[in-house]
Amino acid sequence: MDRNRYPVDPWALRETALPLQPETAETLFAVGNGYLGIRGSSEEGHDAVCPGTFINGFHESFPIHHAEEAYGYARAGQTMLPVPDPTVMRIHAADEPLHLPVADLERYERTLDLRRGLLERDLIWRTPVGVRLHVVSRRIVSFTHRHLAVMELEVTPLDGDLPLTVVSSVVNRLDADPASHTAAPPSPTAEWDRAVVPDPRKAGGMEAHVLQSTDLWCDGPRSYLGYHTAASGMTLGIGVDHRCSSPEEILEHEEHHADAVSHEFRVHARRGHTVRLVKYVAYHTSRSSQPGELIQRCRRSLDDAVAIGADRLYGEQREWMNGFWQRSDVEVLGRPDLQQAIRFNIFHVAQAAACSEGHGIPAKGLTGTGYSGHYFWDGEIYVLPFLSYTTPEISRSALRFRWTMLPAARRRAREINMEGALFPWRTINGLEASANYAQGTAQFHIDADIAYALMLYARASGDWDFLTCTGVDLLVETARMWFDLGFFRQDGDRWFHIDGVTGPDEYTTVVDDNLYTNIMARGNLWDAVRTVRALEQNRPDAYTRMVERVGLRPDEVNDWQDAAERMFIAYDEELQVHPQDDQFLFKEVWDLPHTPDADRPLLLHFHPLVIYRYQVLKQADVVLAEFLHSDQFSSEDKLRDFNYYEPLTTGDSSLSAVAQAIMAADIGHVARAVHHFTNLVYIDLADLHHNADDGIHIASAGGVWSALVYGFGGMRDDTGVPQLDPRLPDSWQGLRFRITLAGSRVRVELRPGEVELTLEDGPATTLRVRGQEVAVRPEGPTTVPLELHSRLTEPPTMSDIAGRLRSDGTVIEPTLPSHSAHRNDPEPSSEAREHSASQSPIRHSPDT
Amino acid sequence: MDRNRYPVDPWALRETALPLQPETAETLFAVGNGYLGIRGSSEEGHDAVCPGTFINGFHESFPIHHAEEAYGYARAGQTMLPVPDPTVMRIHAADEPLHLPVADLERYERTLDLRRGLLERDLIWRTPVGVRLHVVSRRIVSFTHRHLAVMELEVTPLDGDLPLTVVSSVVNRLDADPASHTAAPPSPTAEWDRAVVPDPRKAGGMEAHVLQSTDLWCDGPRSYLGYHTAASGMTLGIGVDHRCSSPEEILEHEEHHADAVSHEFRVHARRGHTVRLVKYVAYHTSRSSQPGELIQRCRRSLDDAVAIGADRLYGEQREWMNGFWQRSDVEVLGRPDLQQAIRFNIFHVAQAAACSEGHGIPAKGLTGTGYSGHYFWDGEIYVLPFLSYTTPEISRSALRFRWTMLPAARRRAREINMEGALFPWRTINGLEASANYAQGTAQFHIDADIAYALMLYARASGDWDFLTCTGVDLLVETARMWFDLGFFRQDGDRWFHIDGVTGPDEYTTVVDDNLYTNIMARGNLWDAVRTVRALEQNRPDAYTRMVERVGLRPDEVNDWQDAAERMFIAYDEELQVHPQDDQFLFKEVWDLPHTPDADRPLLLHFHPLVIYRYQVLKQADVVLAEFLHSDQFSSEDKLRDFNYYEPLTTGDSSLSAVAQAIMAADIGHVARAVHHFTNLVYIDLADLHHNADDGIHIASAGGVWSALVYGFGGMRDDTGVPQLDPRLPDSWQGLRFRITLAGSRVRVELRPGEVELTLEDGPATTLRVRGQEVAVRPEGPTTVPLELHSRLTEPPTMSDIAGRLRSDGTVIEPTLPSHSAHRNDPEPSSEAREHSASQSPIRHSPDT
Repeated sequence: MDRNRYPVDPWALRETALPLQPETAETLFAVGNGYLGIRGSSEEGHDAVCPGTFINGFHESFPIHHAEEAYGYARAGQTMLPVPDPTVMRIHAADEPLHLPVADLERYERTLDLRRGLLERDLIWRTPVGVRLHVVSRRIVSFTHRHLAVMELEVTPLDGDLPLTVVSSVVNRLDADPASHTAAPPSPTAEWDRAVVPDPRKAGGMEAHVLQSTDLWCDGPRSYLGYHTAASGMTLGIGVDHRCSSPEEILEHEEHHADAVSHEFRVHARRGHTVRLVKYVAYHTSRSSQPGELIQRCRRSLDDAVAIGADRLYGEQREWMNGFWQRSDVEVLGRPDLQQAIRFNIFHVAQAAACSEGHGIPAKGLTGTGYSGHYFWDGEIYVLPFLSYTTPEISRSALRFRWTMLPAARRRAREINMEGALFPWRTINGLEASANYAQGTAQFHIDADIAYALMLYARASGDWDFLTCTGVDLLVETARMWFDLGFFRQDGDRWFHIDGVTGPDEYTTVVDDNLYTNIMARGNLWDAVRTVRALEQNRPDAYTRMVERVGLRPDEVNDWQDAAERMFIAYDEELQVHPQDDQFLFKEVWDLPHTPDADRPLLLHFHPLVIYRYQVLKQADVVLAEFLHSDQFSSEDKLRDFNYYEPLTTGDSSLSAVAQAIMAADIGHVARAVHHFTNLVYIDLADLHHNADDGIHIASAGGVWSALVYGFGGMRDDTGVPQLDPRLPDSWQGLRFRITLAGSRVRVELRPGEVELTLEDGPATTLRVRGQEVAVRPEGPTTVPLELHSRLTEPPTMSDIAGRLRSDGTVIEPTLPSHSAHRNDPEPSSEAREHSASQSPIRHSPDT
Repeated sequence: MDRNRYPVDPWALRETALPLQPETAETLFAVGNGYLGIRGSSEEGHDAVCPGTFINGFHESFPIHHAEEAYGYARAGQTMLPVPDPTVMRIHAADEPLHLPVADLERYERTLDLRRGLLERDLIWRTPVGVRLHVVSRRIVSFTHRHLAVMELEVTPLDGDLPLTVVSSVVNRLDADPASHTAAPPSPTAEWDRAVVPDPRKAGGMEAHVLQSTDLWCDGPRSYLGYHTAASGMTLGIGVDHRCSSPEEILEHEEHHADAVSHEFRVHARRGHTVRLVKYVAYHTSRSSQPGELIQRCRRSLDDAVAIGADRLYGEQREWMNGFWQRSDVEVLGRPDLQQAIRFNIFHVAQAAACSEGHGIPAKGLTGTGYSGHYFWDGEIYVLPFLSYTTPEISRSALRFRWTMLPAARRRAREINMEGALFPWRTINGLEASANYAQGTAQFHIDADIAYALMLYARASGDWDFLTCTGVDLLVETARMWFDLGFFRQDGDRWFHIDGVTGPDEYTTVVDDNLYTNIMARGNLWDAVRTVRALEQNRPDAYTRMVERVGLRPDEVNDWQDAAERMFIAYDEELQVHPQDDQFLFKEVWDLPHTPDADRPLLLHFHPLVIYRYQVLKQADVVLAEFLHSDQFSSEDKLRDFNYYEPLTTGDSSLSAVAQAIMAADIGHVARAVHHFTNLVYIDLADLHHNADDGIHIASAGGVWSALVYGFGGMRDDTGVPQLDPRLPDSWQGLRFRITLAGSRVRVELRPGEVELTLEDGPATTLRVRGQEVAVRPEGPTTVPLELHSRLTEPPTMSDIAGRLRSDGTVIEPTLPSHSAHRNDPEPSSEAREHSASQSPIRHSPDT
């Protein structure tokens, strides 16, 4: 990270000179609220590289053309659309436009203010006519009015008078120049036989003229635009209003056509007198309403916003942010550099999720077109833990959104000859949009990821009613899918096996008994069994309604229990590690130490068939499973598995560092945890994966919180009572975070040798610290002393780990294990089980 | 097969009424010579459903758009193009056109004459003006002039005089109406979210106006057309000439434009007087010459043809066929029905291959657009054995064609990060055209299939010089590929493993240690080792040139030997079967007995991920390997493996029945062999796979010969001296076939209890019959008595086999084997080795 350009500031990302990679800066300085997002392109517009304004769920559809077809392949692609861009407010000083790349700037500073939720730019321009202009612009996407963005410009001549013009526009850039906005699939060229490797992570393409104009009204400083999409049939309404103030007379003028409206404000500005232009923009979208109706909604949104006024809206924004940070802030004491990066990530999670109600959380939030704006498993595994422990109502709405996708997931299961529901690997509208089944549909684990997030939410929030009345459907339909997918081997082994799946690690695909999948499926099945049984026993009314909704058959729950109890969990007795899948340990080991950087990430330099032949990981897989179901593995298992897989893991997936950081801390290798955490927290700020221009890695951003709280904080909550087993890095003076447990907000402050627990809000509650129960009461903080490295063996050094791969030039490979060897813990430990039982959703249901 | 419409005739396929499936009949009645092929559409043209004229290798290219890209995916698609159609010769009787579907026909018979190589139609039409016309048409594609087709019409009024017009055309139907000729990929529809399942076996699509006109000349009854293709840059010249004869005066007229020429002949025909119109058509194509140059070649071809005249050309054709049948005929005594079907298949192999020099043998020959006219492994494994033992010069040219593809195969290997050469799974021009790597590029076994066919050709033909001077490059480059693909496991096992490949059975893909692949790779490596060493020792000149051509390094041959010796061949000790791959026996068994016919073939009704999870086969895989390397497996192995895999094999691949028939005969289950043979021989005649409209299954047609000679004849030639271990079905009176061994043509006549060997041509030679050496001499036939079922155990009944799957409603599954159990025969038996050594190409090379 360029610290000259981006100085340390614990509460802001500040840019003190024009960015060297403007497209990356547009990502970093994006503002949004989970419903509406605007990339950080400049107000002038002309110098924007990849501008983009996005509305969660607003997408175009297109047929997926498979080069070779087969039964059941996904048929409908979807891609998030950039909506008309509201950012342009272009200044002309005596007819000379401000154009940053060539402007003579005396001052330039841009600040993403993490405490105010506001983007501000402050510059002094020496205009060609010799007068310096002080130009301050501000931009928010409101957290309190989700359809609303407010932006403003304050222009003050410093040295004399001059004629000023500001042109404010809303422009449909997509159809003006589609190529600049989305990466289309490779076009026909004369060089078909050469290897051209587009980055598969980029967004898919669309037809020309996607946004078709339906409405266009102009009313003084206010305009409305209406559109529908060419194929998906979605509708869009936009309203824009302006308030211009100046001591001098203001001349207004409008121009408008289907793909752009412009409002022009002219003032003969006087030295020291400020011209202020405030622009209010409202967006509404729909799948059913006409654009005309959406324009009416925009009218009401604008009326409200103008009545409140920009300054009060900024105040509301700051207030919202205050509340957010009270619940969500994580502080690393004595490290303002890390502090800045941490808050930057957490802030972007808020911007991706806060007002996402009715939609999912896109992989890159609303900050760019990467991954086409699709929802993956990322939300459930990397973002919802943070939200469930800080702002659980957002988790609830994300899980409710999954529930609304159940009908589509049921249909998808039928399409590929399965029972229950199979959630799409990537989607916006609920239909599977992955065109590559080996890395898409085969990731059946998404069903278990959703079930996992649901149970985590219920435990964290105490909102068992959601599980009882709604969420249980998700458990039932996903359990059905697992029972259908796997099978009991009929011969000697008799375990329940799950063949032909892809785990999180996409450097092997369509494998048998992927450990992550089997562990997560087992959890899913148990959760379904316990929830349905508890419902039957304690909430017969809800049980009956559920049975009606999902058509539960009498024998199903026993089947699920049987499958969960007999789930095959492979274990290699000789190596004493858990194989990632049945074949994994038999493969050749990829020689990572001798793979040059130029050949990374592997997926962009090697054919999948090459990568699949080797023991090499795109992301942690076993290690992730051992974090998520921490109570099912011994410390020794975790240590050995971490040590085995760590040197095989490329981290080519941005998600990998989360589990690696957490589990490195878990096994006591705190320095390694800090290494991964550093990679994680700077992934976009330092553009470590060379694709920050596509948008913020929201799952990594959520994972920053996980790495801090689960990793260094050592929190686990598999069993109902959250436990802490902290590992404070030596270089940190302390770590302070908050978790909200069923309404009780507890501040955890970790200092060398002790941890202090303070109840900040809500009723008294209980945690465990290294096995010891600690009551957290309103009376005041409780301090618990920590023995350093209690229960930890001496951690391995990194050279030990790397040494596994090569010593004396020889690859050290695993000895051939007996294939049938395995160790099977069909259920969590009995202690864990007891906790789960006592946490049965039904007994805790407030209305029983 | 509709025996009323298609009566038994051992030397012809006769059609006695208009076909019910005209598109299928167009396939069955196709004529061709391996260079040029014409589907059996009627002379009238209007009623043609899928007319098509094809030239081997004449193709269009297009970029492959992958819905999701990745490194190294195939980039260039290719599809065989229909060239302008020469078949139309339309009769108008007093201005009323003959249109078969509505014509009042007193007689209709169409005959594909297998002895004359000629298609003839004979009909009597009651014209609307009351006069009956006798219309005889004939069509050949010449086996002796490969660029030439001849067709003619003889029209005779039977009841009176009438004005007759015949319009003869050559029409570029492709660009006139592309949709009717090639199945395009699914087009965008509003129903993306519904499962639409195009048959992936159909051909790919192309852009509009593919054939772009460059030349058009007309000169009396002769015309020339020149084209080039829009993208692939190939050129095409066509010439057509006419000779019309009649006792009455003939009026001629021509019309021509870029996509069609028509020549009109008008006669006032008299009762009993025959009007005869002969049409000569010549095609030349090129990748480099201009169309004008090709037209000159057409002029010379036409000049020659007209000088010879149609009747003598028919005579030459018949003579060629005589020679062909002398070498190639297989007779089943007492079964004229089977006889007809057998000859039909063998005839179509001749039509696909005879004049294919410079090209491969497309999967559907030149009879339709199925598989886009691509060359697969089919040629090497299913067609070249037949050709090598009957007309070896065609095999040689096919193998030479592979050799010319070596540079492209080397490039392909580099593209996917490999050494040596990797042949494309499907191609016309040498570039990989498979858009689905799991079922395409992953079928690395194609390299070994080519090497296998090369060695078989050399053994059968005695043409060791080809191997010495050319073919050895193929062995070296493929051996390199195998050595790079596999690896020596470093731990206890230490065998050479090949991971991440797809075997012939595409119902599992990207598996580890596929038995077929490992067996064939081992053979490939051994062949490379022995050939290179023999060359070094005995032909230093050729060795030096080879080393220069392929850059052989000193250590490579030892590496290959090491890999061959240590090749991992899995064996399950408990089940006593060879697993198809490392994981195969651990999968769930597909319940085939309860899979309704409506759900077949599985690939059109189940998602690949579903099929991959099960023990179920598209085609025989282990069983095929045990046929091709018969000497490496004991009779007991073959019996047990056959019994294990037979009930799991769907036969959804048309190739499957070949190996199943041969190996059913091998293990002594002759009735089962007859069952598979029947499915094989009627695959197109009875349209058993419902896609005969796409063209003749040429590999199956070649496999008919293999099933007869290898299966019932029991021939094996792994070791240099061909052996016979016949199994004559009880229902057959005898089986008579010919094999040519290094120029010695031996007639083998199998009768109950004995086999008679007769030298028909060439010098004396030696065969083995059930282990006993038998000299075959010019003096006369040798008769060898056979004990029935010698060496055979009592064969299992089919109910035994089916019983493995279900008895009492329970699926019988294999017991879990110890994974590391295997039995490894690193080399052929010592006897086999000795033979190979004594058959070293070099010692037999005529010039040493």
